[in-house]
Amino acid sequence: MDSITRKAAEFVAGFDASTAPEAARHAVRMGFVDCIGCMLAGAKEPAVGLASVIAAPLPGSNEAVPAVNGHSYSAADAALINGVAGHVLDFDDVALAGHPSTVLVPAIMALGHELRASGQEAMDAYLVGYELWAHLDAIEPGHLHERGFHPTAVMGTLACTAAAARLFKLTPEETRHALAIGASLAAGLVANFGSMTKSLHAGRTAQSGIHAARLAKSGYTGSLDAFEHRTGFLRAFSPSGAPDLDVASFRIGEESLAERFGVNIKRYPTCYATHRAIDAMVALTDQHDIAPEDIQTMHVHTGVTQKLMLRNSRPQTGLEAKFSMEFAMASAALVRRVGLSELTDEFVGQDAVQDLLERVEVTVSDDKAGADLPNAPFDLVWVTLKDGTVHRHAPVEHAKGSWQRQLDREELAEKFADCAGRQVDSARAQQIFDRFWRLDEVDDLREVAFM
Amino acid sequence: MDSITRKAAEFVAGFDASTAPEAARHAVRMGFVDCIGCMLAGAKEPAVGLASVIAAPLPGSNEAVPAVNGHSYSAADAALINGVAGHVLDFDDVALAGHPSTVLVPAIMALGHELRASGQEAMDAYLVGYELWAHLDAIEPGHLHERGFHPTAVMGTLACTAAAARLFKLTPEETRHALAIGASLAAGLVANFGSMTKSLHAGRTAQSGIHAARLAKSGYTGSLDAFEHRTGFLRAFSPSGAPDLDVASFRIGEESLAERFGVNIKRYPTCYATHRAIDAMVALTDQHDIAPEDIQTMHVHTGVTQKLMLRNSRPQTGLEAKFSMEFAMASAALVRRVGLSELTDEFVGQDAVQDLLERVEVTVSDDKAGADLPNAPFDLVWVTLKDGTVHRHAPVEHAKGSWQRQLDREELAEKFADCAGRQVDSARAQQIFDRFWRLDEVDDLREVAFM
Repeated sequence: MDSITRKAAEFVAGFDASTAPEAARHAVRMGFVDCIGCMLAGAKEPAVGLASVIAAPLPGSNEAVPAVNGHSYSAADAALINGVAGHVLDFDDVALAGHPSTVLVPAIMALGHELRASGQEAMDAYLVGYELWAHLDAIEPGHLHERGFHPTAVMGTLACTAAAARLFKLTPEETRHALAIGASLAAGLVANFGSMTKSLHAGRTAQSGIHAARLAKSGYTGSLDAFEHRTGFLRAFSPSGAPDLDVASFRIGEESLAERFGVNIKRYPTCYATHRAIDAMVALTDQHDIAPEDIQTMHVHTGVTQKLMLRNSRPQTGLEAKFSMEFAMASAALVRRVGLSELTDEFVGQDAVQDLLERVEVTVSDDKAGADLPNAPFDLVWVTLKDGTVHRHAPVEHAKGSWQRQLDREELAEKFADCAGRQVDSARAQQIFDRFWRLDEVDDLREVAFM
Repeated sequence: MDSITRKAAEFVAGFDASTAPEAARHAVRMGFVDCIGCMLAGAKEPAVGLASVIAAPLPGSNEAVPAVNGHSYSAADAALINGVAGHVLDFDDVALAGHPSTVLVPAIMALGHELRASGQEAMDAYLVGYELWAHLDAIEPGHLHERGFHPTAVMGTLACTAAAARLFKLTPEETRHALAIGASLAAGLVANFGSMTKSLHAGRTAQSGIHAARLAKSGYTGSLDAFEHRTGFLRAFSPSGAPDLDVASFRIGEESLAERFGVNIKRYPTCYATHRAIDAMVALTDQHDIAPEDIQTMHVHTGVTQKLMLRNSRPQTGLEAKFSMEFAMASAALVRRVGLSELTDEFVGQDAVQDLLERVEVTVSDDKAGADLPNAPFDLVWVTLKDGTVHRHAPVEHAKGSWQRQLDREELAEKFADCAGRQVDSARAQQIFDRFWRLDEVDDLREVAFM
């Protein structure tokens, strides 16, 4: 085996998904369910409506694929809209330094609808996409974020291409062309975090994966060494400049990284880089019954890459506040929660919040946890009161909801109900949850409505 | 002025194009005409037909925009198809280390058709797109190719976004969002040169520019510092890692780079990195009446980045041969020309060509000409015959057809007739040429058919 691109394509086309570990399959199940909830929660956000100006509805076609905005589209355009909806609240799951489900699920649901794929085929497509992303990540020592590239968009485009190629049942050779084409569609900058363009990345990525696979299916060609070539994907996007291009190091199919890294379910609709600190701050506030007006400073010691993603130290809008450690601490201090109702322009703009932003100090550590997320090994939070008292929380390694501290079915259903409740009634929400929880039993994705 | 993104947006929205130097306007004219010819020449290539699987025809709509494949589409999808057609033969013009016209012209013609823009507005849109690309290039000391990024796709997406924003008459603020969105859509790898994906880059880029501007027009947001942010466009794609982010260095609107660099019209449908050497080899063969069977070796001394783009030392297909210095020399030696009829699988595959490939030696120099193209200051060609005779051509700095050695109207019309002749008869070709030569006199782009 001489080529990473070839090895990737052979895995995507040929992997026997029935051999995957149960934990990996559970990660896929959680990713699917949680993403559908987030799509419903986000369906009426302005960005979703605005994104539809670049999608062409297909009214009256039996082949048309439904999107959460109530219109039907080609599979690629439905994936675009649903991807934006899934990510617009930044409430969707996290893994591999990105957001696998909000790109994979919209791509798979849309193309699977077109192709009448089964639920099991959909889950297998997710798994090959995830494994490709994870194993490409594993041969790059750096973090894409630090170069300014959004992993969800850049790695996600290859993951979605793999998933779409799998659903199309492309041959290994066709899959190799699809991955090469996908490599040339991968795009998205960290600088656009905190603007609507971040959620566009998710929709565009899901759409691009379908386009790349469909082009390859038609006979469109890419270069067969597009990953490992001197001017290929791995070097061009490499933050370190030194990806490991030895095919033997690329261990796809030899170990399940979905089993190891899984998905991390968010309990707060903010950048995941804030979650450990929010857990700590809410706990401190509850435990010591701290009144916001008694706080002198809230100190967070976090990771350097986490801080890089958290662009906005003085957010003015709900969207900006998603990328702000200062806001996360202010909200935790003021109302002891950081939920959808806090991520609004009104809440963020009020004096009490703006005042608390000034009392947050963030310092950073260069230490890296070394796992799949670009985090410090732990986050530290301590609060100094005006009377001089200092309350310190223990170091937080893993947020509640993470792969290491998983939500059970009931806890996940609770989040789903909150999310879906913005779009459907609670009985319908429960039906949808149950249907997706048992997605592997579905014969034809057209039988599974998510609205 | 504190922001490169802002300065760019203010130029795009506000530049008084009537003040542009005549030479800059002539570059735009030549770029338009030559690109239309290349689109017609490429219209029936397989890649154009295959790319249509990701475009949705809009039959029967008055708003639909015609593409060279005979179907009508949304503006964005027409730009996709026409961009692929314009670039698929690699016969389109070259400047700024890329191919400005095959991205700008399809984007402008398609959106201009939708908006009923005038010919002058179309030319102004081209000019602001070109200047943005050129001035962003000027603050980056490295060459994108060397990082593996295709400038036509990466810089081209911003140029097309600028052109589309101009046609939409976006405000400076809307234009700034458009450019930020465009920055997150920019994609395309050098590794895919020599495959159909290279021409997909052109179509996708034209399409992305329209999408970005349309999104911004609808109110979609990007980050206002998306170019200069630590995780923004300029650093993320930077080959040097050290772009000059001082706003004063970004001299857009202060000097016309379209006047200085213009467009370089190709006389051979191969990568521009081969053109100086082809001029030399054809001249040597003609001058000394060299028979191919008498040749021992053909030696080319060229630039290191030129060589990087010329991936294929032993091409087997017409497409691969476009990126091969060895093929360029073999064809020049064998038939004393390198034209569309030589860039075929049949011609490339014949024994006489394959044998000559073995007799080409390519060496490289690190020296850079320092202008807009990633070339050595000159290319050197010498031929050693089997009897020991050595014929040396003088160093070639500029190929015939370059901005420094321009084609006149008659020479350009001759190339246009060759190209358009693959699609329309010669009288019609002449009409189209004349119409586009005087594009500034057109009131409504819908009056200008290019087929």
